[in-house]
Amino acid sequence: MSNPLLVVSAHAGDFVWRAAGAIALAAERGDRVRVVCLSYGERGESAKAWREGKKLEEIKELRRAEAEAAATALGAEIEFFDAGDYPLLETPELTDRLVHVYREFVPAVVLTHTLSDPYNGDHPAAARMALQARILAQAIGYDAPGEPLGAPPVFFFEPHQSEQCDFKPDVLLDITPVFERKERAMTCLPAQQHMWEYYTDLARRRGVQLRRNAGPNLGLAHTTMAEAYVRFYPQTTGILA
Amino acid sequence: MSNPLLVVSAHAGDFVWRAAGAIALAAERGDRVRVVCLSYGERGESAKAWREGKKLEEIKELRRAEAEAAATALGAEIEFFDAGDYPLLETPELTDRLVHVYREFVPAVVLTHTLSDPYNGDHPAAARMALQARILAQAIGYDAPGEPLGAPPVFFFEPHQSEQCDFKPDVLLDITPVFERKERAMTCLPAQQHMWEYYTDLARRRGVQLRRNAGPNLGLAHTTMAEAYVRFYPQTTGILA
Amino acid sequence: MSNPLLVVSAHAGDFVWRAAGAIALAAERGDRVRVVCLSYGERGESAKAWREGKKLEEIKELRRAEAEAAATALGAEIEFFDAGDYPLLETPELTDRLVHVYREFVPAVVLTHTLSDPYNGDHPAAARMALQARILAQAIGYDAPGEPLGAPPVFFFEPHQSEQCDFKPDVLLDITPVFERKERAMTCLPAQQHMWEYYTDLARRRGVQLRRNAGPNLGLAHTTMAEAYVRFYPQTTGILA
Amino acid sequence: MSNPLLVVSAHAGDFVWRAAGAIALAAERGDRVRVVCLSYGERGESAKAWREGKKLEEIKELRRAEAEAAATALGAEIEFFDAGDYPLLETPELTDRLVHVYREFVPAVVLTHTLSDPYNGDHPAAARMALQARILAQAIGYDAPGEPLGAPPVFFFEPHQSEQCDFKPDVLLDITPVFERKERAMTCLPAQQHMWEYYTDLARRRGVQLRRNAGPNLGLAHTTMAEAYVRFYPQTTGILA
Amino acid sequence: MSNPLLVVSAHAGDFVWRAAGAIALAAERGDRVRVVCLSYGERGESAKAWREGKKLEEIKELRRAEAEAAATALGAEIEFFDAGDYPLLETPELTDRLVHVYREFVPAVVLTHTLSDPYNGDHPAAARMALQARILAQAIGYDAPGEPLGAPPVFFFEPHQSEQCDFKPDVLLDITPVFERKERAMTCLPAQQHMWEYYTDLARRRGVQLRRNAGPNLGLAHTTMAEAYVRFYPQTTGILA
Amino acid sequence: MSNPLLVVSAHAGDFVWRAAGAIALAAERGDRVRVVCLSYGERGESAKAWREGKKLEEIKELRRAEAEAAATALGAEIEFFDAGDYPLLETPELTDRLVHVYREFVPAVVLTHTLSDPYNGDHPAAARMALQARILAQAIGYDAPGEPLGAPPVFFFEPHQSEQCDFKPDVLLDITPVFERKERAMTCLPAQQHMWEYYTDLARRRGVQLRRNAGPNLGLAHTTMAEAYVRFYPQTTGILA
Repeated sequence: MSNPLLVVSAHAGDFVWRAAGAIALAAERGDRVRVVCLSYGERGESAKAWREGKKLEEIKELRRAEAEAAATALGAEIEFFDAGDYPLLETPELTDRLVHVYREFVPAVVLTHTLSDPYNGDHPAAARMALQARILAQAIGYDAPGEPLGAPPVFFFEPHQSEQCDFKPDVLLDITPVFERKERAMTCLPAQQHMWEYYTDLARRRGVQLRRNAGPNLGLAHTTMAEAYVRFYPQTTGILA
Repeated sequence: MSNPLLVVSAHAGDFVWRAAGAIALAAERGDRVRVVCLSYGERGESAKAWREGKKLEEIKELRRAEAEAAATALGAEIEFFDAGDYPLLETPELTDRLVHVYREFVPAVVLTHTLSDPYNGDHPAAARMALQARILAQAIGYDAPGEPLGAPPVFFFEPHQSEQCDFKPDVLLDITPVFERKERAMTCLPAQQHMWEYYTDLARRRGVQLRRNAGPNLGLAHTTMAEAYVRFYPQTTGILA
Repeated sequence: MSNPLLVVSAHAGDFVWRAAGAIALAAERGDRVRVVCLSYGERGESAKAWREGKKLEEIKELRRAEAEAAATALGAEIEFFDAGDYPLLETPELTDRLVHVYREFVPAVVLTHTLSDPYNGDHPAAARMALQARILAQAIGYDAPGEPLGAPPVFFFEPHQSEQCDFKPDVLLDITPVFERKERAMTCLPAQQHMWEYYTDLARRRGVQLRRNAGPNLGLAHTTMAEAYVRFYPQTTGILA
Repeated sequence: MSNPLLVVSAHAGDFVWRAAGAIALAAERGDRVRVVCLSYGERGESAKAWREGKKLEEIKELRRAEAEAAATALGAEIEFFDAGDYPLLETPELTDRLVHVYREFVPAVVLTHTLSDPYNGDHPAAARMALQARILAQAIGYDAPGEPLGAPPVFFFEPHQSEQCDFKPDVLLDITPVFERKERAMTCLPAQQHMWEYYTDLARRRGVQLRRNAGPNLGLAHTTMAEAYVRFYPQTTGILA
Repeated sequence: MSNPLLVVSAHAGDFVWRAAGAIALAAERGDRVRVVCLSYGERGESAKAWREGKKLEEIKELRRAEAEAAATALGAEIEFFDAGDYPLLETPELTDRLVHVYREFVPAVVLTHTLSDPYNGDHPAAARMALQARILAQAIGYDAPGEPLGAPPVFFFEPHQSEQCDFKPDVLLDITPVFERKERAMTCLPAQQHMWEYYTDLARRRGVQLRRNAGPNLGLAHTTMAEAYVRFYPQTTGILA
Repeated sequence: MSNPLLVVSAHAGDFVWRAAGAIALAAERGDRVRVVCLSYGERGESAKAWREGKKLEEIKELRRAEAEAAATALGAEIEFFDAGDYPLLETPELTDRLVHVYREFVPAVVLTHTLSDPYNGDHPAAARMALQARILAQAIGYDAPGEPLGAPPVFFFEPHQSEQCDFKPDVLLDITPVFERKERAMTCLPAQQHMWEYYTDLARRRGVQLRRNAGPNLGLAHTTMAEAYVRFYPQTTGILA
């Protein structure tokens, strides 16, 4: 049984730093993964290109190519809405495009940004639209092709400064088996090289915490790498574990 | 592989109303279940017996017998600390007894009360001791027999007035397959008959919510029954679902 | 002295499940009650009609008739803004229409949705507009007929999954004397029959809590039924009770 | 019908600054009021006397006389537990003494400190014991004379630095009719003269807020004085207002 | 080294009541201060003028003149966006105008409203735009003249009813040396004379708290006056104090 | 003017991982620094020694020697209360000993643990005693030698899993100039070598955040290292910055 994974990302690079591990794990299990980038991050997250004097269209092209390469490295499809960034404006039209994605792709799990980020207004805007579109897609009366959506769980991936975004991890995901793929995806984004180290450090830090919360007896390696997530809806399960 | 389940309960009846479903599920899976009742609830939760003029020792005996019957109905072992209730006093000695339980029983999962309950001081006292004993049992230097404990996840079961106890469910457990056993256990507590209906209503209500959060497409029956839990430590996992 | 009650509801059915008791109590005291339905809930809350193949206009007509019948059963006036649902868009024009209602109806008490609801974006949108319009109506400089509004207290009525909406009841309203009327109003909404039981269960549950918070000595019947509310502004009073 | 009011205060002066208005209102309505001072505030709130070189017993006598005079001015009975302050230690014995007061006095309303106060550890200690004793007094099995207590509502009175104590007022009490009595009671505490102005300012500030929340149309005078409270348990009522 | 101070205010009077002390201190230190009033407060905060029968344009002129006088008294520049109030609508255009201010004025510190205010929708709208514009101004790719902005700290000034706006002060600013200037600025707003006393009381109250948090040993005068602020981003420093 | 720094630490190693930078900065400025270790961490934080078969007294001696070496490396005095750990019990006697330290050392700044830590009960116990002792030391009537204490600010240093302890940094301290000293102090604790890397990673991560919050224009080096703190009382200041 397939469990398609949908990732809604404000800018071209977000899915790599914050969710590459989850994406690669899903892809390796054989699940389809779709990344939707609402913008290229052309204005807000391309400082190096601007400083080099590149033009807007060039930068968008550049970011697109990088993101496509990263998605490929992770085994994911990728789609760009080119909705503009800084600011990414929350509109009914953009939300409606996301409804169409939900109805067509039928995700079993959804990943997106946190609802709060005092350093970046585009991230919460993307999250609000991802959540609102999910609700709309559930309504049989909403005018879009496809069946009403079920209730796929939503996870927020980790923002850059977790505590300031009220991000209190409630899921620690073991990404050790695919960490090499995450590294490969990160190197597809050469302009943000300082991020490689930051997110490698973070993965190691989350790995230490995963080992601590899983207990020392499980025999997890000292090299455990992890990503942290916040679950937005209650988990439904047949077993407490 | 066995996953022993430990339930730390302030009074004799708590584990029935709040966690009978989880207990029965574990027992049916073949996991050992141990219930530790810190008190019999002889003063605070035996109003009917007091009104009938029973004496303290009689009441304790009565509550013990009822709780044993309920545990048996669910497939659980039960142990009584007879530490007194109303108030249940938080002491190093009682905590130490719990450390010994952890070290000897080696639970894979722990259930206990919420840390806040404006209607009942014994419940948070039990929870604080259950959590503190778990931490102490993890330390190799703590003087008690057995190996240092791993890091079993802790779940808070549902208090009587959830919102007033800041209980925001993050796990909805499907107890439909064992609900009949929960009913049988509840009938072992004849003095609190008004609770049978209350907790049957609650299980149905949580069942509706489970269906809503699991999505309509899963084909869950309209008769789904559920228990709600709050997870105290982050979940560690190899898959987001 | 009359105390008009205004209820601002996102969809046609909300006021019935969540506030029928408060409405019927006010009506029986002789207070005017006005329900404003911002939409008919034609897309998001009419799944049965869509599955039966009904068309949008038919469904709106159907929901309108049902809501009118329910309002009549409760003794309330009802008004429809037909602003569309799923999504209900928050606009200055819609807010302005609500200002006109405030200025003309001059409510002494206002009921509306909670500001948070992860399952339904229309509910918070309705609440935000209801609150914003109340503020605007207070300003003498706002261009709308009538006198500046006073400061009617606002109560949020209970959402479907209270804890997930951060709904912590601070008022428990005894609706026992009018519960039969609430039942009658619910039966005016035949397409959502599963809700009848859910909200009857809930009223009984809130009734148990009301008895518990009012104290056993008041002699409240075991059949006490209640609705829960959250007060948005501080209570002003001449007596603590 | 009489509604006895119980005030549990950590130190001798607290009930004056924070609740004199509520006390005087109750007394003027003909309700009995009992103030229980757990300590005299002899160490922590008698700086002037210590600087003047007074001895411990003298200071206790002094504070007792002042508090008695203030209670008389307000129409309240007063009782001293002489349990010591700075620190006021939370003990089962002290809590038990409070249970006896609840069982004997049978309050209809209870006032005490907030559960959080980063400037004063005695205040939360007093509040925890007041709340715990109320719960114990409700249990028929608790060994103390008298009938089991009902469920009197509890209000927290205002701490010195409200925001730092997470004190968000949800009740504003109009004390205009008795403000002169509050002033008289404050003058019974001559050593803390700087507090007279502080709490007069505060009453005026809360009065402005009361007028704002009650609405301009009620015709409240510009001289409205108020006290702020936080309600700990949900209000139970037959009417929303 | 100069530290320009930018104040973003929803209405013409806000900066006076809430931040006049901080403004005067900066001006006396020789720092440039710029106040941006997004509206004149012509509809929502000019009740007296409306009651006197003045027209909209007259009222705007009046408020402008008053605000200019107050700014002059404090040593600040002032600018009006005339964006309309009640409601002040959050738009991309208005935010863009603020970005231009940031890029041109290059503030070292920013003051604005709180993000929550249940009594006034314009205040949070102004704060959201002030914060969003600061983020946009930091992006080299944002199309506006000037260099990318650094990361000036943002402080929220005190709303009218602090606790209801979740305003928990974390900075208490000593404004004693400039309090006379604040008084002079307040008298420039004769229509809101009741506010003079309210904000003088408040300054005294915050002064008492400043003395209490600074410690009695510092020898601060009993006449210390203060303003309270909430810091939105973490403080960066080379010394803990 | 000297600003003595007091650090209250539950176990022997805590002050190194969490506050070595602040300590070294103070020492280099010429301020006295006193570290009070309530226990040696002999049971809970000495797993390696226990696994090697060492005895309790040996372990205490070992931890003491290590902590002394680390304190010396940082330029701090150190004192041990030997109160026992796992559990560290909160007692009036221990709190009284801390009062004596406050009265004798007269700190200008205090560092201690957070009030919440779900992984370690000793840390909050230490913090509660450090805070309570500070309050008691302020009271002239408290029976201990020395003058009443002023109001030194308190900062919580960073726990091991920040988000789970509700640790939201509001101060980022630049420790770049003394990071080498912190490294030296860490190497004095050879049994916890895995912590060296963890806290070096953390310092780098907090350094990135410091640069981001201070703004890119300040020219902070890419090698900025930082420690994060939470301020418990409002900052008092004469300048907003």
